[in-house]
Formats: sequence, structure tokens, C-alpha cells
Amino acid sequence: MSLLVVGTVALDSIETPFGKAERIIGGSATHFALAASFFNSDTRLVSVIGEDFPVEGLKQLAQHRINTEGLQVKRGEKSFFWAGRYHIDMNTRDTLDTQLNVLADFDPVVPESSKDVDFLMLGNLMPSIQRKVLEQMHERPKLVMMDTMNFWMDTAWDDLMDMISRVDVLTINDEEARQLTKEYSLVKAAKQIMQRGPRFLVIKKGENGALLFHENKLFFAPALPLENVFDPTGAGDSFAGGFIGYLSSKNDLSFNSMKRAVIYGSAIASFCVEKFGIERVAELTQSELDDRVQDFIDLVQFDIDLV
Amino acid sequence: MSLLVVGTVALDSIETPFGKAERIIGGSATHFALAASFFNSDTRLVSVIGEDFPVEGLKQLAQHRINTEGLQVKRGEKSFFWAGRYHIDMNTRDTLDTQLNVLADFDPVVPESSKDVDFLMLGNLMPSIQRKVLEQMHERPKLVMMDTMNFWMDTAWDDLMDMISRVDVLTINDEEARQLTKEYSLVKAAKQIMQRGPRFLVIKKGENGALLFHENKLFFAPALPLENVFDPTGAGDSFAGGFIGYLSSKNDLSFNSMKRAVIYGSAIASFCVEKFGIERVAELTQSELDDRVQDFIDLVQFDIDLV
Repeated sequence: MSLLVVGTVALDSIETPFGKAERIIGGSATHFALAASFFNSDTRLVSVIGEDFPVEGLKQLAQHRINTEGLQVKRGEKSFFWAGRYHIDMNTRDTLDTQLNVLADFDPVVPESSKDVDFLMLGNLMPSIQRKVLEQMHERPKLVMMDTMNFWMDTAWDDLMDMISRVDVLTINDEEARQLTKEYSLVKAAKQIMQRGPRFLVIKKGENGALLFHENKLFFAPALPLENVFDPTGAGDSFAGGFIGYLSSKNDLSFNSMKRAVIYGSAIASFCVEKFGIERVAELTQSELDDRVQDFIDLVQFDIDLV
Repeated sequence: MSLLVVGTVALDSIETPFGKAERIIGGSATHFALAASFFNSDTRLVSVIGEDFPVEGLKQLAQHRINTEGLQVKRGEKSFFWAGRYHIDMNTRDTLDTQLNVLADFDPVVPESSKDVDFLMLGNLMPSIQRKVLEQMHERPKLVMMDTMNFWMDTAWDDLMDMISRVDVLTINDEEARQLTKEYSLVKAAKQIMQRGPRFLVIKKGENGALLFHENKLFFAPALPLENVFDPTGAGDSFAGGFIGYLSSKNDLSFNSMKRAVIYGSAIASFCVEKFGIERVAELTQSELDDRVQDFIDLVQFDIDLV
């Protein structure tokens, strides 16, 4: 099944307690597409870059057979740039610089050939831009998933609520779920969010894993406890890309399939943090992924016979 | 197999965003014993109370067939008292009052009949007091488990390290594990702690679950996401009591049995927080517990066939 991912393709400068990387390839759509391409060879990308974007970045997307027909290149402009520094806990960070550049007036254009994709992932963009993508579709995709953040709750509430009402799966982090609903309990927050539209809700808790909600069902996947977290940038996007990449490869939207998608997403995310940027996921092999999924099985599996 | 739990039997005044309770029965040993008694009918308690301790408290322990031969009652003295107020997140709290009273010069005396118990749980007390208990044993128990906290790292480091070297299972929370080892990664922290002695380590992460470490093995149990957390006091102690109560009832110290113990401990803890103090665990039924364990199975179970 075809998959279209929409989001940022960016240059990031990242400092962690373990090292520094300057102007490396990042962005939500980059992470979505790379992670998804591991499962789905028909992954397409809509985004925008400037003339300064390194050609090796495009080469890496091509090597992973990601269709970049929808990637606009703006002559004479610069790519979206983000710089940040992680604290020792690796869970909190300071943004040192944000240059919107080409993103400031991003007008996403879905190529004609992608207007009938089966699965659509809308990255964390301004809700009105997410809507512009959805409205270019000839038919509503089988599954529409979106990510968002607190910034849009503060600045574009009505547009955000409109978009939330249109999607099948929403991903959001725990603090944002609380902010959106004014409920501290994530169970109560999830109920309220699902009443606004999404049939499935993924609440991301960073190093504390992710919760999948659907009707009265609940599934939890831990993040894999790691000896070394090298760079958390893109972990959430790798999770989302692995999740929808797996789902679109199977075309099975049962809750059991969704659970597997959460595990595969978590597994890809656990690789993402091992190196800077996209480096680790770009070199990932199938047997490494299988071993990692086995680690997840070992981590949570227990046998209790209830009589 | 016989089980002895040692810790505080206290009076607590608790304020949460949902209500207030004055001078209710609490304390680590109370929670240990109640939780453990659900699995093991030979549960014994060593602690100390003052004359002000309500007779209903003793009645409840008796109703759960907890042997209180080792519970000292100090005439003319007052019980250990703690007062605290939880914040809206229910994860952080302010201590409003601590009156050590009988705990100030607690000299634990293990009854002659309990000096050969099979399982021993040492609650979070001054490490030198924990040692006094261990040294009264005729023979080293099959399993010794202890809980501790950051306060003893700051005030009794050498005694604490000595005790840690003597036990089989240590329970500690995530922040304390980091403080003890100066390692941020819990995987690295766990390795370092196990090098100091304990063969098994449980790192408690509050609403984010618990990790069990043993050799190179790792198991994770989430806390059950709940709609309402009413009073978190005693959740960690209920976990520990359920854990060692289950283990001592089975006398099986394999890693698979330890995993089940973590799940039963987590299940008991998930009841503890539903009402003030010991109220909910005291009235718990077997079928309620079975249903809750099924909730844990549903929460984490997935099927992926790796070829």
C-alpha cells in the first residue's frame, strides 16, 4: 500500500553530553520516510528544502527508495535549520536557534501521482498546512495519522481541533495530552481526545514508552532501556514512521496489528538514538531489527496462568 | 515459606487533590505485610508503635493473619507520624510534618520463633537498624530483600554499602539509583549496583513502572494507567510486599518467577492507590486481583512471529 509522509526536511546542529554534530540531515519527514521505508518500498515524501541542502541527503533518501517527487527545492533560499543542546538527562533540551527559512511560506504540493495514496502521515506542521495536504487528496486515504505539539494549541486552537477531528490516528506526547484536555490522568485525557475524532491515539512518553488507545482498549510499549542514548533527536518521528510504515505494509488495521506497529515503531526509535541524526536507522539491517524486537519480547513477556 | 517484614507502622495525615485523611494507619511494614499476606499466610511483622496507635489498626493486621509478635508497643510514647500533601500530578509531594517518636530509638527485636524465617524484607530504615535485624537471624534467610532511599546515601553511606552487599534483592527508585551510581543510564546504574552485591535489583519508576535486573536479564512491568489515582502513599511498599509475598509463597527464585512477582507486586500497588492508606488492599479479593493481572497481560501482550 502506498504511503505519503509530509513534514520537515531540515538541517540540525546538535550538542549532547557525548558530542556535537553540525548541520546534519534531520527533519520529521526525513525520519518518517527512512523509518517507514524499512517496511514499505512505496514511501513518498512531501516537503521543502533550500539550495543549501546537501546532495548526500538526497542520495540517502534515494538509496532507501523514497520517492521525492513531492520535495520542493527553493532556488536562492535556505533549508529549515534547528540547533539545540541536550541536557545530561537527555530528556530535556534547549533550542539554541530556529531558522524557518523555506518553511516560513511552505505551501505543500502533493504530486498528481500521490493524490490517491492509501496511507498518509502528517507531521507536526501548522494545522492549516496539514489541512492543505489532506484537501489535495482525490479520495480520503484508508488511514490518516497526524502528529502535533503544544505550540499549535497556543496559537491555532480552532484549526488544530478541526484537523484532529479529521484523522484516524493522533500522536502526541504526555504533557501535550494533558495540556490539550486539562486532565492529568492520561486515561481520562485519551478518552476526551478520542471523542474529538481520532479512533486511535498514541501518547508518547519519551524514555518511558508509548501508550496506544482505541475504544476501551489500551496497549503499552516501553522504550528499550539502553546503556547509551547518544542523540534523542528524531526518536518520536522514527517511532511514527516505523508505526505507519509497518501498518501500510500490512494493510491490517486491527488492534493486534496496531500493537505490532507500536513495537516496530519503538524498535526503530531505539536505534535512532544510538547515533546522530539519521545515521543509525539509515544503516539498519533486517536481522538487527529482528534481534531488537526479540529484546522487546524478552523485556515484557511473562507467563501467569489465571485459572 | 515463612516471611518476616520489618519497617514502620505509622500514622499518616494525607492531603491529595481529591481529599484529606487524618491520622490513618500507614507505614512501610503495614503495607508490606498486608500485600504479602494476600499470598502468604505465614507473614510476620517486626516494628514499633506507641500507645496512641488505634486498636482497629491491630485488628486489621490480625484479620489478615499477620503475626505481630514482633510489634513492640511503647507505653507512654507516640507512634511514628508523617503528614504530607500531594501535588496535582500525584507524583510529587510536600512533607508537612514528621514526628519520629517511637522510631527515634527503635531497637528491633526479632522474636525467637522468627529467627529462622525463610524470607526477609527489610524496609527503608537506617542501614544500621536493618543490619541489627539481619544479625539476629539464626541462619541467613533464603532471600533477603531491602528497600532504601537517598537520605541514607547522604548520611550513612558506609553502612548502606555494607547492607547492600549483604542482600539478594534491592529495591530503589530511579532517581536514587542515579544518585547512588552517578550514572544517568539505568542500565549502567543497575550493573554498578549489582556489582556491589544484590543478585536482583528492582528500580521503581512510580507511574512509569518498574525494572527488574538480574545478571544480563532485564524485565519491565508498567504501572497500570488508571483513571483515578486517589492516594499514592504506600504504592511502592505494596509493590514490594506483593513481590516478596508471592515469591515466598512459591519458593521459586527463577527469573520467570521473579517476573511474575513483579507483576503481582504491580497489581497490588495499582489497588493501593485507589483509596486512602491501606483501605483498598485490605478489602481486596482474589477475583479482583486476577482481573487486574489480566489487565496487565492485555496491556503489554503482543504477538510478533520472528522467522
